[in-house]
Amino acid sequence: AASRQALERAGKTAADVDAVIVACSNLQRPYPAVSIEVQDALGVEGFAYDMNVACSSATFGLQAAVNAVENGAARAVLVVSPEICSAHLNFRDRDSHFIFGDACTAILVERESDVAEGQGFSVVSTRLRTRFSNNIRNNFGFLNRADESGIGKPDKLFVQQGRKVFKEVSPLVAETIQNQLSGLGLKATYLSRMWLHQANLNMNLLIARKLLGRDPQEQEAPVILDEYANTSSAGSIIAFHQYHEDLQSGDLGVICSFGAGYSIGSVVVRRR
Amino acid sequence: AASRQALERAGKTAADVDAVIVACSNLQRPYPAVSIEVQDALGVEGFAYDMNVACSSATFGLQAAVNAVENGAARAVLVVSPEICSAHLNFRDRDSHFIFGDACTAILVERESDVAEGQGFSVVSTRLRTRFSNNIRNNFGFLNRADESGIGKPDKLFVQQGRKVFKEVSPLVAETIQNQLSGLGLKATYLSRMWLHQANLNMNLLIARKLLGRDPQEQEAPVILDEYANTSSAGSIIAFHQYHEDLQSGDLGVICSFGAGYSIGSVVVRRR
Repeated sequence: AASRQALERAGKTAADVDAVIVACSNLQRPYPAVSIEVQDALGVEGFAYDMNVACSSATFGLQAAVNAVENGAARAVLVVSPEICSAHLNFRDRDSHFIFGDACTAILVERESDVAEGQGFSVVSTRLRTRFSNNIRNNFGFLNRADESGIGKPDKLFVQQGRKVFKEVSPLVAETIQNQLSGLGLKATYLSRMWLHQANLNMNLLIARKLLGRDPQEQEAPVILDEYANTSSAGSIIAFHQYHEDLQSGDLGVICSFGAGYSIGSVVVRRR
Repeated sequence: AASRQALERAGKTAADVDAVIVACSNLQRPYPAVSIEVQDALGVEGFAYDMNVACSSATFGLQAAVNAVENGAARAVLVVSPEICSAHLNFRDRDSHFIFGDACTAILVERESDVAEGQGFSVVSTRLRTRFSNNIRNNFGFLNRADESGIGKPDKLFVQQGRKVFKEVSPLVAETIQNQLSGLGLKATYLSRMWLHQANLNMNLLIARKLLGRDPQEQEAPVILDEYANTSSAGSIIAFHQYHEDLQSGDLGVICSFGAGYSIGSVVVRRR
């Protein structure tokens, strides 16, 4: 449904698309790739593959799609992020289970020349960064069969050290966006909007504060946690989806996701 | 070890690399991404992510790396394919269990200008294609928890309809390579070597025969199945690794993988 809506909004059909990337934390099976099933359901020719870098999957997928389109490997790429977080939560762990939700998002990445005048957003720049950490982890995998004593243990479900993540990731994110903007000759105050990863309200406030040098106004860094909860990689894309209509041509914003890994994906966009 | 060997052969260190992609059928866990752990072990700055499109993962990873390097998102990308096939085989199924092996491969994709004179290969063209099929499938996944009656059932292990795959995939592969070569103004007979996916000797002979219009000579389409067995996405890369030293500058070859999905990834390369 998300994919069809993305195509409809872009005024395009499956025939205009050459590739489907399913980018999410929670892939249902190893193969056939889930993306190929989505491709088949939509009737898209071309190719498809799955990718995973946890909560940052959607922005990492965006960069892969931008690279493929700019390089001519595809005319348009659909980046789909189906997140079924519920199924790997530990309902005996108060620190994790009630904060997640399920959702699916889809973004169509096209050549500039294929987009109607005044429609959509241009990708100004993408910046990806990862630094290994075990503070958010899920050990569920096919190798577990080799050690039967571990089957069904809590470390095969979602586990996180919330406070450590908060302290360590927030400054990394602010620094990554700051460096990206500096490289573009931009200041954070030029941004009309920050669609940040939707895991924790205070984390987003802290990041926005570090960037702006003041508390953000509500519409500068919109929060969708009250309605959708944490939907992993889908979160920042839902925020973008819900809060972009009022932007004017030329307005700048940043979509930034962050999470397990640690991984940070930051995409600066301009309203066309 | 494979990654370190790839860096050593290229005369490069971790400091020259900006990204690590782990592309394979058999990812050990959902997150943190396995690629970020590899990145950390090697001491690479930059970013990393996992991708999966079964047996074709390595060639799809190659295209993603080529796109990222050509686009300037990274100076060099390491594509790593660790395949631990043993752990998801059904040892009660004679049709599948004895044909697989475990292996890990690594390829360094760099800017042309960073590669020493006469070293390595140039990527002439990449061609990816997928068409949905359930004839090779593995349902092992986190959602299985939701249906306890299915736990431990054979469909959570590797399952394939070998003869159907043989009949349906072989012509698709030959056609894909043929179209790619035609687009480049090349004939199959110009290829000094075909490093085909290593699943089945007869499949490779059939594909080579369709392309060349005659039986291939042994060194035209080298087979490593006798030593390594089917190592999923690692297979065509091992064949490339073992059988490239004798090629002369300007010689052309094609690395082509195919498998579950169905997915086909074809990379035409030229000896520098």
